[in-house]
Amino acid sequence: MFKDELNRVSLEKNSRIILALDPSALPRDLTQEQLKSRAIKILRDVSPYICGVKINMQLLLPLGLYYGVKEIIDLAHNFGLPVIMDCKLSDVGHTNAWATRHYFEAGFDAMIINPIIGWAQGAEPIFQVAKEYGGRGIILLVYTTHKAAPESYELLVKDPVSGREIFLYELFARRALEWNADGAIVGGTYPEKIKIISSILQGKVPIFSPGIGVQGGRIKACLEAGTKYFIIGRSIFNAENPAEAAKFFRDLALS
Amino acid sequence: MFKDELNRVSLEKNSRIILALDPSALPRDLTQEQLKSRAIKILRDVSPYICGVKINMQLLLPLGLYYGVKEIIDLAHNFGLPVIMDCKLSDVGHTNAWATRHYFEAGFDAMIINPIIGWAQGAEPIFQVAKEYGGRGIILLVYTTHKAAPESYELLVKDPVSGREIFLYELFARRALEWNADGAIVGGTYPEKIKIISSILQGKVPIFSPGIGVQGGRIKACLEAGTKYFIIGRSIFNAENPAEAAKFFRDLALS
Repeated sequence: MFKDELNRVSLEKNSRIILALDPSALPRDLTQEQLKSRAIKILRDVSPYICGVKINMQLLLPLGLYYGVKEIIDLAHNFGLPVIMDCKLSDVGHTNAWATRHYFEAGFDAMIINPIIGWAQGAEPIFQVAKEYGGRGIILLVYTTHKAAPESYELLVKDPVSGREIFLYELFARRALEWNADGAIVGGTYPEKIKIISSILQGKVPIFSPGIGVQGGRIKACLEAGTKYFIIGRSIFNAENPAEAAKFFRDLALS
Repeated sequence: MFKDELNRVSLEKNSRIILALDPSALPRDLTQEQLKSRAIKILRDVSPYICGVKINMQLLLPLGLYYGVKEIIDLAHNFGLPVIMDCKLSDVGHTNAWATRHYFEAGFDAMIINPIIGWAQGAEPIFQVAKEYGGRGIILLVYTTHKAAPESYELLVKDPVSGREIFLYELFARRALEWNADGAIVGGTYPEKIKIISSILQGKVPIFSPGIGVQGGRIKACLEAGTKYFIIGRSIFNAENPAEAAKFFRDLALS
């Protein structure tokens, strides 16, 4: 499973940091080549201090999946780093299946999906394609980092199983466990949620926390609450010295 | 607003059909040029019978946004057809803003987002960018077409305003109204939901229904329940004669 592979790389490289490789520009401000070069420079500089790379729309849309993005995936693989597509897929089955095929065909090792889609004709075809591609990883978005996160994720819902009132994010965490996902994304800006979700996941599904640094999440509080991997982007690549910033966060997450 | 523009085109072309332009293939089975040609042929053939085009990951991922997809957008515009990006965006603010900029920069007239992201640092930056690009459209995904839709969308949630138990999709429909969205997606496979959501939207936000044909939704039941536009893909482009199929659905939706 992807979670075992990521764990192996994390131990080998002695890092729990996943780089969110999100330099951003419109084509009229930065050509495709310039944006790609910028991304590649960041990746090269920080590669010794990370255990994985996450790519999102900031690179996918201007560079193209089978063009610039594939080059970056190949480079990350040369550094021994797995690459996660942060597409937060929330579509219906046939579209989910096609998107998943394309991402894995281009070389991604894992992808992030939105558990609101449910199982039948939702997440099921995604997990099916992941299996067909030799056990790629599926990570569930359980609680986001942003200000409005409580508006949805903290809705009290009637648990269809027990009939009790639970939070929507608890239901999503349970889906991560039931679906045997390779990870759960829980915003580093909400350590108290990490703790609750961690108790649901029972150490079987690793927690990935974005939102460190720029968005205010603190590494120590997240570690204590149950985060295994930290997803860090702007606080690394916008730093004066990205390699030093990556090393700083790496050391902090090992302490 | 986009909804007014779409309404104008719909009246002018006398059609309520939006083509889901989703021919699907991996690059190893069909080259980029072959897939693009197939999409362009479908679009040309059915263009007299539709009022808009919707593009999803099936074309975006293999063709690239600023490459093949932009060409198709330009062609649709030449036919007088607005184009909607069905990205179902469900990310945090800064990523949402960048994705939105790229989609609009490439020429999309509207995009579909997932209301689970809430407002502050979620949907707000998307609506902000839509305004900056001269009033592009934002459509909310309120109830999907697939089998597992009830698993999430029919969760009973405690309404944060009234304290009463309501369905999650009712809350999402209310967001479409409060956020002044240009549309709400409600699966044509669930006409009884269309009726309830239509009563919440009070005619102020048009309902778009996918899932007609292949997925089992019926046009007449949807029309009676409150659907304004039908999003149809495979039942048109997989037909022996796509133009005839498009004309058939167009006429049905006018009756």
